[in-house]
Amino acid sequence: MYIPTYQDMLDAHERIRPHIRRTPVRTSDYLNEVTGAEIFFKCENFQEPGAFKVRGATNAVFGLSEAQAEKGVATHSSGNHASCLSYAARLRGIPCNVVMPHTAPQAKKDTVRRYGGQITECEPSTSSREATFAKVQAATGGDFVHPYNDPRVIAGQGTCSKELIEQTDGLDMVVAPIGGGGMISGICLTLATLAPETRVIAAEPEQADDAYRSFKAGHIIADDAPRTIADGLLVPLKDLTWHFVKTHVSDILTASDPEIIEAMKLTWKHLRVVMEPSSAVPLATILKTPDLFRGRRVGVIITGGNVDLDKLPWIA
Amino acid sequence: MYIPTYQDMLDAHERIRPHIRRTPVRTSDYLNEVTGAEIFFKCENFQEPGAFKVRGATNAVFGLSEAQAEKGVATHSSGNHASCLSYAARLRGIPCNVVMPHTAPQAKKDTVRRYGGQITECEPSTSSREATFAKVQAATGGDFVHPYNDPRVIAGQGTCSKELIEQTDGLDMVVAPIGGGGMISGICLTLATLAPETRVIAAEPEQADDAYRSFKAGHIIADDAPRTIADGLLVPLKDLTWHFVKTHVSDILTASDPEIIEAMKLTWKHLRVVMEPSSAVPLATILKTPDLFRGRRVGVIITGGNVDLDKLPWIA
Repeated sequence: MYIPTYQDMLDAHERIRPHIRRTPVRTSDYLNEVTGAEIFFKCENFQEPGAFKVRGATNAVFGLSEAQAEKGVATHSSGNHASCLSYAARLRGIPCNVVMPHTAPQAKKDTVRRYGGQITECEPSTSSREATFAKVQAATGGDFVHPYNDPRVIAGQGTCSKELIEQTDGLDMVVAPIGGGGMISGICLTLATLAPETRVIAAEPEQADDAYRSFKAGHIIADDAPRTIADGLLVPLKDLTWHFVKTHVSDILTASDPEIIEAMKLTWKHLRVVMEPSSAVPLATILKTPDLFRGRRVGVIITGGNVDLDKLPWIA
Repeated sequence: MYIPTYQDMLDAHERIRPHIRRTPVRTSDYLNEVTGAEIFFKCENFQEPGAFKVRGATNAVFGLSEAQAEKGVATHSSGNHASCLSYAARLRGIPCNVVMPHTAPQAKKDTVRRYGGQITECEPSTSSREATFAKVQAATGGDFVHPYNDPRVIAGQGTCSKELIEQTDGLDMVVAPIGGGGMISGICLTLATLAPETRVIAAEPEQADDAYRSFKAGHIIADDAPRTIADGLLVPLKDLTWHFVKTHVSDILTASDPEIIEAMKLTWKHLRVVMEPSSAVPLATILKTPDLFRGRRVGVIITGGNVDLDKLPWIA
């Protein structure tokens, strides 16, 4: 297991800078009043493909040798990683193969195809996904870019909190959602060197709280079929992300689905940005445990903005 | 009739700079592909009270003498001007009286009150509004700040396109919605001096196309009870805004309500910002008359982001 270094993150930033957006940091006097904290929202939903995952994906794609690049990249994902990897591969002009369950939403498939990704469908089971992916990889020779358990991906995600620190004037803590742990690991990697006094807090849905339970237990625990509105946070920690979580995360906080939906609507209304349910988990936890944040300067990563506008969770 | 000057706009910018946001400019590769233009969206929906109108309101409020400031300001409006004027008055710590029909949405009343505005309700008719406003003004001595037909307001709105020009590298045209014409007049005022080669195009709902008909006729025509989803654009031109429209606007384009809703949803999806139907009219006209914009660098003002999230127009 290669653990990415601070220098890897700096190299990643140089590599991806021409291809990604330096997203703005937004504030809301109203949300500051409500929480008693001073919150700096880093709008990764404003990346062109709508999620921070374009950072890690672009770092992996543009770090490939010419020989490997010809064969392209491959992954399994039905979420933002699939579209971001397709997007990054198109930027370099190389093939991207994605294995996705046939049950994935049509909108997700459309986005991957719009960016030129080749989809191979599998059954919605781990065994089918693994077998299908093995076949695709054997046929194409595409380099496997894991959605989060990959040092290139984590180094890429780490560039987000580097920008956030540059754009603000010191932060007491940074709060980000945790699913597989790619973003949180990137934050740990960056802040451990750049701002070691800034605490890293992970925010997780109560109904998919495997990272919280892993953190308390001291070893990885995986959920059995979690169900939450925060559908970007269903995957478990892996060895590399667990390394960062256990060594550098200060705390993991959880929020219920109704609390997440409330925080999501509040952000849409007062920050006026479109973001996914997963991205609302940090604000939900801040509203739930205000004592921890009152009077503090708090960075929050708005991780993504890909949401079905026809089915908003607060509209029955 | 005092016509505000370029220097008035520069003074306004100095005056309001500490109190307003220098809003970011957003782009979307996807929307550029779809339109064939290069569009720069100026996000005035990111002002704290959610609309560009905070610029003009703040300029009026902070330009008052100490003696007048003690008596505060007054206006009639049930839209963004009411909340933005209340917001600006609260910043200076002075009273703000607002006359509003009792039929105005509860959410609008709540926002005005949250910012400390005093609401006096009237019947939803012009005669009742005028009589009620006269009474309120006589009782309070508040300085009347018209929503748009006021040189201080227009000079304030003009600061938006000054920033947009500073934030971009030259534009072929700027497109903004037109209702009473406050924003458009501010753009004309600023660009006539700062970027005279940049064309100013107004975008209007077909179902409230009084500015379009005025422009063609050469004199002000008012609509009789217009009805459109773009509810920020129902009011008629007045002498001051008509002056700017007739002397500096290149063209007025219109779009239907379904086209406006489509453009609104497209912006939410790809730019990932929450904006009002009124703010979608420019993109709707760009999509409708692509030949005019193809290959051009186009500034678009996203005028506001106050929308009822429980009643989105594309959800039946």
